[in-house]
Amino acid sequence: MTDVAAMLLAYPGKLEHFDRDELVLCVQECVNCAQTCTACADACIAEPDAAELARCVSVCLDCADVTLATARILSRQTGYDAKVVAALLRACDEVCRACYDECRKHAMHHEHCRVCAEACRRCANACRKLLASIP
Amino acid sequence: MTDVAAMLLAYPGKLEHFDRDELVLCVQECVNCAQTCTACADACIAEPDAAELARCVSVCLDCADVTLATARILSRQTGYDAKVVAALLRACDEVCRACYDECRKHAMHHEHCRVCAEACRRCANACRKLLASIP
Amino acid sequence: MTDVAAMLLAYPGKLEHFDRDELVLCVQECVNCAQTCTACADACIAEPDAAELARCVSVCLDCADVTLATARILSRQTGYDAKVVAALLRACDEVCRACYDECRKHAMHHEHCRVCAEACRRCANACRKLLASIP
Amino acid sequence: MTDVAAMLLAYPGKLEHFDRDELVLCVQECVNCAQTCTACADACIAEPDAAELARCVSVCLDCADVTLATARILSRQTGYDAKVVAALLRACDEVCRACYDECRKHAMHHEHCRVCAEACRRCANACRKLLASIP
Repeated sequence: MTDVAAMLLAYPGKLEHFDRDELVLCVQECVNCAQTCTACADACIAEPDAAELARCVSVCLDCADVTLATARILSRQTGYDAKVVAALLRACDEVCRACYDECRKHAMHHEHCRVCAEACRRCANACRKLLASIP
Repeated sequence: MTDVAAMLLAYPGKLEHFDRDELVLCVQECVNCAQTCTACADACIAEPDAAELARCVSVCLDCADVTLATARILSRQTGYDAKVVAALLRACDEVCRACYDECRKHAMHHEHCRVCAEACRRCANACRKLLASIP
Repeated sequence: MTDVAAMLLAYPGKLEHFDRDELVLCVQECVNCAQTCTACADACIAEPDAAELARCVSVCLDCADVTLATARILSRQTGYDAKVVAALLRACDEVCRACYDECRKHAMHHEHCRVCAEACRRCANACRKLLASIP
Repeated sequence: MTDVAAMLLAYPGKLEHFDRDELVLCVQECVNCAQTCTACADACIAEPDAAELARCVSVCLDCADVTLATARILSRQTGYDAKVVAALLRACDEVCRACYDECRKHAMHHEHCRVCAEACRRCANACRKLLASIP
């Protein structure tokens, strides 16, 4: 069992809002995507063609910040507000989509963009699945 | 001129997406709201009636994270994506509304909740105004 | 191979500063600790004895922020500065130590504090090991 | 009175650790530096000579993350730990020094680097002053 799952099991209140496994997966994909995007932005600026990757750097940084905020909000149950979580999952899905679109353009030439695009795709899927479960 | 405004003026590309003054104001309100919510959560848990402020602590922390992400995304112009920014401004408006609703319940007894509710109200207004200007 | 390891392998520059496996482990422990501390703070405020866990909430939030910053700085190689990384690893070790000390006090009664203390212990160890390898 | 000062005044516990005005100033400089560095990194990658600014982008992002963590930790009083705060202020001083050194190299050609270097210099000073007051 991962620490994400262990912490959710140990939460003292009821967990009524989400399916436990879907929530754990979404937190893990958000956390992973945030780290991958942070590393991809840094790898892009170290490439010889950094100037052509400017948009990719900026979108990766945006994606890192929104996925991080989403991971943190989903890690808290006490102040749960369905409208807030739904709006944030939509924003997270959008930014993962934007980062996926940008990174896959460079995936042939840059392995870090390929790995990052894949992390964004999985994260967007997990967000949409969780979003669909909000009544 | 604040540093937020100075940095925006010094951006090398065109700033086509937003009215400059509205963007500066929104960044400043997001940055301020993030700090205020961080401090309010900490003040709430130090109150003798902390157990009754549990939801307020959690919502303040959510608001701090989303306003921070919004401030950062709005501070970047290079990877601008209208759909991402619109979705995030909506999420930011929602979480500021939720935090305002919670904090003003305690504003009579806790000055930090009164100041925080006011910061959330101003931030939500700035987000909605900026959102309305996206074509 | 985790995405953290894959991204590090795909970095276009040389990775001279650290042993690759130690760096990957440290990033992973920081990322995990940040999420665990975020969840532990939220679980603490939802406990009936929240008022007695006030210090634990605040220290967990501090630990979440510093481990996050450390994970991000370690995810970037391009602007590596030995003094910055060393100072941040020391701060990360300190805050994990403080959070471990606080959480283990409550570990008998609160499973989330037990899991969190363990995550902090592992993260502090990874930080100290990486710190020792900086020339 | 700024919201930073108002929130500190409203804190329910005693504020024994710091001079109030020095603490307010340090939080404000950290918050401002974090925003300025975020914007400077984005402006750098949009410059035609982005490839030569690679190190500047990365150091600005590091500085944004550490100053943000410092602002958040200083915004919380409840879990105050002198060793944690001292270690983090040292890390913040180091990263502001590194970012100042890098940005001022480009200050002649890039106004955003000039503004950013100045924000880093003020933030480092505020951190050192606060650090000196810790017994």
